[in-house]
Amino acid sequence: MSALRAAGLSPVRAVRTFSSQRALRAAFYGDEPAAPVLKTALPGPESKRHIEELRSAFETRSLNMMVDYTKSAGNYIADPDGNMLLDVYAQIASIPLGYNNPALAKAASTPEMVDAIINRPALGNFPSHTWAAILQSGILKVAPRGLDNVFTAMAGSDANELAYKAAFMYRRQQERGGRDVDFTPEELESAMRNEAPGSPNLSILSFRNGFHGRLFGSLSTTRSKPIHKLDVPAFDWPQATFPQSRYPLDQHAEENAKAEKASLDEVDHLLSTWRVPVAAVIIEPIQSEGGDNHASPDFFRKLRALTRKHGVLLIMDEVQTGVGATGRFWAHDHFDLEDPPDMVTFSKKAQTGGYYFRSRDLLPNKPYRQFNTWMGDPAKAILFRAIVDEVARLDLVANTARVGDYLYGRLEELARRYPEHFENLRGKGRGTYIAFDSPKRDEFLAKAKTHGINIGGCGPSSVRLRPMLTFQEHHADILVDALDKVAKEL
Amino acid sequence: MSALRAAGLSPVRAVRTFSSQRALRAAFYGDEPAAPVLKTALPGPESKRHIEELRSAFETRSLNMMVDYTKSAGNYIADPDGNMLLDVYAQIASIPLGYNNPALAKAASTPEMVDAIINRPALGNFPSHTWAAILQSGILKVAPRGLDNVFTAMAGSDANELAYKAAFMYRRQQERGGRDVDFTPEELESAMRNEAPGSPNLSILSFRNGFHGRLFGSLSTTRSKPIHKLDVPAFDWPQATFPQSRYPLDQHAEENAKAEKASLDEVDHLLSTWRVPVAAVIIEPIQSEGGDNHASPDFFRKLRALTRKHGVLLIMDEVQTGVGATGRFWAHDHFDLEDPPDMVTFSKKAQTGGYYFRSRDLLPNKPYRQFNTWMGDPAKAILFRAIVDEVARLDLVANTARVGDYLYGRLEELARRYPEHFENLRGKGRGTYIAFDSPKRDEFLAKAKTHGINIGGCGPSSVRLRPMLTFQEHHADILVDALDKVAKEL
Repeated sequence: MSALRAAGLSPVRAVRTFSSQRALRAAFYGDEPAAPVLKTALPGPESKRHIEELRSAFETRSLNMMVDYTKSAGNYIADPDGNMLLDVYAQIASIPLGYNNPALAKAASTPEMVDAIINRPALGNFPSHTWAAILQSGILKVAPRGLDNVFTAMAGSDANELAYKAAFMYRRQQERGGRDVDFTPEELESAMRNEAPGSPNLSILSFRNGFHGRLFGSLSTTRSKPIHKLDVPAFDWPQATFPQSRYPLDQHAEENAKAEKASLDEVDHLLSTWRVPVAAVIIEPIQSEGGDNHASPDFFRKLRALTRKHGVLLIMDEVQTGVGATGRFWAHDHFDLEDPPDMVTFSKKAQTGGYYFRSRDLLPNKPYRQFNTWMGDPAKAILFRAIVDEVARLDLVANTARVGDYLYGRLEELARRYPEHFENLRGKGRGTYIAFDSPKRDEFLAKAKTHGINIGGCGPSSVRLRPMLTFQEHHADILVDALDKVAKEL
Repeated sequence: MSALRAAGLSPVRAVRTFSSQRALRAAFYGDEPAAPVLKTALPGPESKRHIEELRSAFETRSLNMMVDYTKSAGNYIADPDGNMLLDVYAQIASIPLGYNNPALAKAASTPEMVDAIINRPALGNFPSHTWAAILQSGILKVAPRGLDNVFTAMAGSDANELAYKAAFMYRRQQERGGRDVDFTPEELESAMRNEAPGSPNLSILSFRNGFHGRLFGSLSTTRSKPIHKLDVPAFDWPQATFPQSRYPLDQHAEENAKAEKASLDEVDHLLSTWRVPVAAVIIEPIQSEGGDNHASPDFFRKLRALTRKHGVLLIMDEVQTGVGATGRFWAHDHFDLEDPPDMVTFSKKAQTGGYYFRSRDLLPNKPYRQFNTWMGDPAKAILFRAIVDEVARLDLVANTARVGDYLYGRLEELARRYPEHFENLRGKGRGTYIAFDSPKRDEFLAKAKTHGINIGGCGPSSVRLRPMLTFQEHHADILVDALDKVAKEL
């Protein structure tokens, strides 16, 4: 029982966990190899041929690996040469339950799915009579605490932009004096010229190193890397410094608290003084693309209070952090916010996208203000429902919490042995959402492939682990043993 | 043969057409009712129950009709009460081949589709070894003349925004002195603050009444209605007047030419003088959401020349007009442009989205500049490939040309009998892409439902016909007879 206790599990919980683990094994591991399979140098001849074929048709300069998805299985990604790598990047953190997951294959083969694919509705005008049930049994079933409403979208960028639009409409409605106050003729007319007051001069505050997407509004809040932003016109919106934490967080509590206070003071200042009034603050519970940067629950509670003080909305961007990988379904569940965010955006592992919102007050006062042709995609919503069912059936959120603790412990050992390649290990208590810095990061990632591991980077020199929710202790062992070899070779 | 000659068909073409029509009938009409079925008042009791159920979960204020897609068939849309309406709105012009199309059902049931759904790749990093073939046999097979490259997206709004980003990157690259000239430290640093020169002050010129989407960049070019734009911050981008044509176009050639010259002069002036330099002009071949506004091929040829003169790009937005409904696969094919547009955007009937582009010069000079997690969706690209195959097999572009001419002729009769309800009939020679103005438009649309027709509006008082590509003469007869009754009752 000591291992259980160490993992923070009660005996009842443990029984449930072990039964889930058996189900998990039965569900997946039959098709997985026992370990990575390396048959050729990477890329192999077949991969090279397919890359060449693709070059004239599509962007291949960012290509990382040519994949044969039909041969990929569970936590393993296959290439056309028969190589199979343990995948802890998972399509930039967007595959939840492994490749060729049998439960999802079943969900994707039903008449309901075929119907959703070939009869795609314009959901705002012509919803299906099954749409309410699809939402209630899927997307809304896992709604963050306190956020009972949803507006569906297609991916993370548009989910964030729709949330921004809702925030701007809410702000102007408040300024106008309520939901029932109509637009002025001047507003109606100036909006058509892209001028205030109809197109108001309002902003969204985001954080340095934050990533919120790459369309024009979302990119104006993205502050990750110049290559993401160069040559694209942007709105004059403010950015605050995300707390510059030192890791492990608990060993630097005092100085981290100072950094968090400095960040909050800056937010406070910007909300009072920025030249374009702020309608909402957007933040990731863990800054992901920007380098896996963490802050304490206390920081987020105080940030929530600060947005209240200034009468601006708080949007939690859970596009990458959401759907179970951190050991809670939503990463911001770790913060125990008494006063939940006003909106939570999601996509990636959910396959669909959208924003949850707190109150019907955030619904624009008239129809056709928040509207587009498709307004989401029932086919993806059905897929997410199947994912939600499988996460519950196999208790996968508890799984990532448990396996994450195990993996973190093993990485701590590596960091002790190779401190120069595993700096700033972070993500303790955050499931498998773990990262570390490695000065030779790009070489590190390349070498990991030669040891059968597909792994991703983030920020200037971080290695981010984004295994699927089905990642288990034995996968963690394979990963750590390979990273050990990588470190030896660097 | 006289009917053939009147329809502009050669005997060889006619044989092919009649054989396609037989195939079309075999493919679809078995499941269609012979005429609309009206069992209850609209909405009926079952529809009302489902609307009530949906109200707490989703936006229902814009709901037009609750639909049972499983019972919908071909050109007929069904509701949960067993009513079946002839659908000439087709999910805001986004259903190409009818409901429950058997060929698409087959394509949606293959192992290839299941694989694409459950193993969704991050296409820029981890494309499937089948992706090149999917593109070549689908999206690229129908690439507009002169545009051999594509970047895939998910819907119309993001397709347009990605095209804008490509235009801005191209413009700055020209200003910088070419593809190989690197960014300056000042650019790298200012981009992170959303300031010039890194985030340049550049614009996209669009036209009054144009519609290009509702995200922040696309909405800044959308000039349809205030309700689409109010309370959303917008870029300071210019708009020109779309030619104010009188209809029928050929009977007002001289004054329309004057209106077109006035529009071109305004574009010329704005491109020279607008306070934010213009990188690209975007235009729809037929302004759709904004009221089905047409201009002559000559206008578009001159607009193309004008963009050349000013060194700005031309983006043709074919999101609504594309994929066959106008009697050509792309509506701008009607213009016989010697010098094609630089980019053509698409979505809706294509189910996927994206932009075609003319030259690899428009590809940003480095990877990760035009990039996002999914970069499109192979499942939708596979669906579009099946649509492309079916359009070819059944010769559906010729079908819309022929049926459109027939329908236009019958509507001309109605317009002669009820000139007050069928004003400015337009779309002659543009397939089934037909519209007219009706001062009592909203009442017109509501009454059409009571006669078994689902039909949509656009602009302030227009009725737009957007039947599917499978719409036939006998459907046109049902439609026209119902509209005759509507007009009598108004």
